[in-house]
Amino acid sequence: MGIGDDCAVLRSRPGEELAVTTDLSIAGRHFRLEWHPPEAIGHRTLARGLSDLAAMGARPLTAFLSLALPRRLTQPERDRSTPWMSRFFDGLLGLAEGYRLPLAGGDLAESPLAIADIVLVGAVPRGRALLRSGARPGDVLYVTGALGAAAAGVERLARFKGNLPKKIHGALKAHLFPQPRVAQGVWLRRRRLATAAIDLSDGLSTDLAHICEESGVVAEVDAAALPIDREATLVQALHGGEDYELLFTARPSVRMPRAIAGVSVTCIGRIIRARAGRPLVTLLTELGPRPLAARGWEHFG
Amino acid sequence: MGIGDDCAVLRSRPGEELAVTTDLSIAGRHFRLEWHPPEAIGHRTLARGLSDLAAMGARPLTAFLSLALPRRLTQPERDRSTPWMSRFFDGLLGLAEGYRLPLAGGDLAESPLAIADIVLVGAVPRGRALLRSGARPGDVLYVTGALGAAAAGVERLARFKGNLPKKIHGALKAHLFPQPRVAQGVWLRRRRLATAAIDLSDGLSTDLAHICEESGVVAEVDAAALPIDREATLVQALHGGEDYELLFTARPSVRMPRAIAGVSVTCIGRIIRARAGRPLVTLLTELGPRPLAARGWEHFG
Repeated sequence: MGIGDDCAVLRSRPGEELAVTTDLSIAGRHFRLEWHPPEAIGHRTLARGLSDLAAMGARPLTAFLSLALPRRLTQPERDRSTPWMSRFFDGLLGLAEGYRLPLAGGDLAESPLAIADIVLVGAVPRGRALLRSGARPGDVLYVTGALGAAAAGVERLARFKGNLPKKIHGALKAHLFPQPRVAQGVWLRRRRLATAAIDLSDGLSTDLAHICEESGVVAEVDAAALPIDREATLVQALHGGEDYELLFTARPSVRMPRAIAGVSVTCIGRIIRARAGRPLVTLLTELGPRPLAARGWEHFG
Repeated sequence: MGIGDDCAVLRSRPGEELAVTTDLSIAGRHFRLEWHPPEAIGHRTLARGLSDLAAMGARPLTAFLSLALPRRLTQPERDRSTPWMSRFFDGLLGLAEGYRLPLAGGDLAESPLAIADIVLVGAVPRGRALLRSGARPGDVLYVTGALGAAAAGVERLARFKGNLPKKIHGALKAHLFPQPRVAQGVWLRRRRLATAAIDLSDGLSTDLAHICEESGVVAEVDAAALPIDREATLVQALHGGEDYELLFTARPSVRMPRAIAGVSVTCIGRIIRARAGRPLVTLLTELGPRPLAARGWEHFG
């Protein structure tokens, strides 16, 4: 229900909990109307929410979208017949379809600034959600996929200034159409292999610090082990956000596969005991260890 | 859970469904930073969502808030020590406290435009949610409280231009601090007295049309029976939005109390069979019947 009523009504299965996440996407901050194709903005809006569900190992159930748009974006443009809003929904619903995820409701309003707020509801068996707080000293640190591609893609996007090539691939594609690791999160949760997990939305240095803070531990990362995307730099891999890969920990005794549902898994470091004077995250390099400051995306306030 | 994790985790009771609603509040459209006290904006943001739950007879469970704000609103003003944002939260959390409603999560971002998106999750026994679609010919039409006060209050607010009196009461209070009819919605749902319900957010003429459309019926409203607020006009009572009263229908055999949980209930008309040429809503006046067009708030698109 929902279309035509004041609320949508959800039913969860017995023994399941619901995971809820909300994510704002704001013109000029999370996307640029003059640079990003509308389909990419729609895709990225939903991908952010799906990635939060993936981090908890939740199965996506349903989505709600609140959309505030300037009126011109809801109407056909001069030279095209498809309004910006339709193309935005093409991108969002295209990604949703792959997860058989219904858009159950939301709100729509006119606004001088384009803002999308996505609400995702997922299901997870009671008490089984992957949390940030479960990492223990001795755990091994893993990451899915490759790092830094989205940050490299943003730089590419800025150079194109809206005149994108017909064929979008590589880092640019990673930025415009990120693939949230939903199947990988559910896989890890089902097999109970991960002690803690987070999605890389703000950047490795920042998101790993979150795991350490919530778990009361510190971490070491081997610079040489990082799966850096071939178009990205080490700095982009360490601090670039929006890769939407999963960062997770597991007991050292676990035999982790090389890939989960077609996406590679790489061991990049380990969790150690917190001790006075030890940095939250240490990067081990050829020149020796150095503290790794959280320099990814920071929400104000 | 939620603070510190990627999602909040909700548990519903067996046999219960969850009702979810999202509502955007945008500066310049739903409120004015130069007119509305921050506490009122916070209160109204939450009241909109609570009123949607009330319309379905749902018990409020938890809230999520996505807040996009100009940086200056998060910092102390020149002459005051309390930032706008703190006062906004005072208003929002003050209303939430009355319902023992936790703010379980959300998102916060910097934005040139102030926008709040509230997500409310409520619980309702399976299959028992009050819907817009249940009105049948012969049903009697009821409304809680008084109508038009919020619209009268907006006019008053515009006249004050931000220099509000110390003591806020009457219509101005109805606009700034509306009371969603949560207890009344739950009461109606528990006793199974209402066949259909909606909250008066867009105005009686518009919201009654929604019930008629969803139920496939038409309605007659007795102008003389309308509980018009003593500061409001008939036009404000018919078309003014944001009263957040409940509009509902019941079988004619039901003995409806004069008040529910301290709020008056008034019979204002009846549901009749749809027929070609019959307007969706007819207003019965001393001068005879006339069609009542939906002239309340209309969302664009």
